[in-house]
Amino acid sequence: MISKSSLYHVVEAMAPLYVAMGLGYASVRFRAFTPEQCAGINHFVALFAMPLLIFRMISSNDPYAMNLRFIAADTIQKAAILAALALWARLSARGSLAWVVTLFSLATLPNTIIMGVPILRGMYGSMSSTLMVQIVVLQFAFWYVLVVFLFEYMAAQRVLVAKQQQAAAPAAVVLTVLDGDQQINASAVVPVTEGDRDADTNTEAATPPPPADAAASMTAPSVKLILLMAAKKILKIPSIHASMLGLVWSFIAYREGIKLPSIIDDSVAIISVSATGLATFSVGTFMAQQSRFISCGYSVASLAMAMRFLVGPAVMAASSLAVGLHGDLLHVGIVQAALPLAVISFVYAKEYNVHAEIMSTGVIVGTFASFPITIIYYILLGL
Amino acid sequence: MISKSSLYHVVEAMAPLYVAMGLGYASVRFRAFTPEQCAGINHFVALFAMPLLIFRMISSNDPYAMNLRFIAADTIQKAAILAALALWARLSARGSLAWVVTLFSLATLPNTIIMGVPILRGMYGSMSSTLMVQIVVLQFAFWYVLVVFLFEYMAAQRVLVAKQQQAAAPAAVVLTVLDGDQQINASAVVPVTEGDRDADTNTEAATPPPPADAAASMTAPSVKLILLMAAKKILKIPSIHASMLGLVWSFIAYREGIKLPSIIDDSVAIISVSATGLATFSVGTFMAQQSRFISCGYSVASLAMAMRFLVGPAVMAASSLAVGLHGDLLHVGIVQAALPLAVISFVYAKEYNVHAEIMSTGVIVGTFASFPITIIYYILLGL
Repeated sequence: MISKSSLYHVVEAMAPLYVAMGLGYASVRFRAFTPEQCAGINHFVALFAMPLLIFRMISSNDPYAMNLRFIAADTIQKAAILAALALWARLSARGSLAWVVTLFSLATLPNTIIMGVPILRGMYGSMSSTLMVQIVVLQFAFWYVLVVFLFEYMAAQRVLVAKQQQAAAPAAVVLTVLDGDQQINASAVVPVTEGDRDADTNTEAATPPPPADAAASMTAPSVKLILLMAAKKILKIPSIHASMLGLVWSFIAYREGIKLPSIIDDSVAIISVSATGLATFSVGTFMAQQSRFISCGYSVASLAMAMRFLVGPAVMAASSLAVGLHGDLLHVGIVQAALPLAVISFVYAKEYNVHAEIMSTGVIVGTFASFPITIIYYILLGL
Repeated sequence: MISKSSLYHVVEAMAPLYVAMGLGYASVRFRAFTPEQCAGINHFVALFAMPLLIFRMISSNDPYAMNLRFIAADTIQKAAILAALALWARLSARGSLAWVVTLFSLATLPNTIIMGVPILRGMYGSMSSTLMVQIVVLQFAFWYVLVVFLFEYMAAQRVLVAKQQQAAAPAAVVLTVLDGDQQINASAVVPVTEGDRDADTNTEAATPPPPADAAASMTAPSVKLILLMAAKKILKIPSIHASMLGLVWSFIAYREGIKLPSIIDDSVAIISVSATGLATFSVGTFMAQQSRFISCGYSVASLAMAMRFLVGPAVMAASSLAVGLHGDLLHVGIVQAALPLAVISFVYAKEYNVHAEIMSTGVIVGTFASFPITIIYYILLGL
């Protein structure tokens, strides 16, 4: 049974995040900040604050002392959901790679860094921070890389299908066109909504072609080129860059028993400490700039919320029990799976123009809904 | 004698500030941020991060346990320099109120919050943070208020003199005009340099009229109106607002033995922790946006540096010895007086168009010069 004082402790951990978000929301609504000024803050978060926070988290995590069961549970959850979605896409006429990626992101990619670490620490103490960092390592070193790769793959498909409908064009040319068209904006946590940055790209994306047809028609060299191109783009995303660097450093540091000199650590920290406040502020400005909170219709919004707050945590509970987790480890796993959708998932969806309106709704509604939902999970698990 | 390890400790404390500044400088130079985006970050610092940091510092300072000797030394230093400058302005033909305010700011208003607290803590431990906060309290609750009042007074004088040269105009009308013309931009730590915000205000400010003439010609009601107007504007400056609120709260809290609930304290902290990194980043972007580092000529720049790094600390040393300070207290007093010029002094000079180019040079050159100078003071005092 959760005591009133520990429940207050959780509200205490969540409140500052909502205050920062409210400040961002009010700043736009009361015109204290122009959209371009908001973009400046957002850009600072994406280019400096977030990558440095991720680097600091991952580089200070001992990779030789990770909780393998906990990681296994997290990996099984994500892999199981991905496999189930892929199977559905093969069998159902309505299935498509775009839906697979969208539903996968919704179900398995919560906001671990900005919201997860403080909230879970409020609930289960500092051991949960260590566990969250382990999930962050895998999220940035593997799962986001996979998501970006799938987006790249779809983008290439769209171009290939369009070209093949016209005539046979050499794959290399197609890919050059692609490279120019679809620049990952490596510097946005929250996109500038009034911009018409992606107005000209892929208006046909609303109904992407079923993946099986196009995949079959892709030749071996083009797949290799897509792989190369995706790798190149992924390495341009500062957060992924930072997580790789942090991971490499952590493997060296914890084997050799060395630490980052505090002059470097402090220089990273002076910027990275701003990430949580600025990122949540930025989400607030993003919400205020949207014309509607629910831009994808109520039934799709309900599906998105169900994926985020029911399917994700339920599959995490099952996979945790399957690998033998119990007690606080089990609870941390389930509660973190019920956090709001990571904003970065929306950023990618927007960049590649794949169900961006669903992801926007997922972030906005999910962030509001998560306040009671996270607490309900916490109370239920404490019974 | 200062040991090598404690010297390294000081460099360690200063380095992150220069890294954040370098990041800001590079961001503008390599066009990673547009001027408007920089303005967004700067605006965030001035509107939220700095005021909340000031509030947090001052509200957690016990006003009943302040070191009265230390405060007396600081007050005597500032009052003595102001008196000497006022005397010079009366006696010398070249003296003017504009020069009094400029030289006073240069000599007595160092960057205590952003640079002072971390650097002094690196040198003399956490007791110096407490002392710095006591100086911050007086800086924001009294000295900046005085500086802003003097700027308002000069602005009103200029308008009055101009009007009197034309004809006799009612003071109230003059002041209404003034109010519209000279809005304090309450939301800038570092002004947006490419803006033409102040291009149309007071181009005659380069040669302000000698204060005695105009002051004599001002009637009693106009002085009262200026006072009222200045008070109104001062209360619109978020940092001064925040320091007053913090001061009131500290008097209540430490008398009643109560603390801010941590849900409020954490909500303030989530934003205030970003102040140091963002403010120094912002100074870096400001430097990169200037066409020249030294915009006021070498002889005036030398005068500015002498006021900042020699006169200020020397008078502080004298006043500290006069009130009987010795040991670390004496050293903290002298070293903090040799910190670089506070950016906010430049902001005011720019807003009121009074010797802004000198203050710009003071901030830029002073920030570079302070790295060796602060360390030299530290070493000399440790002998």
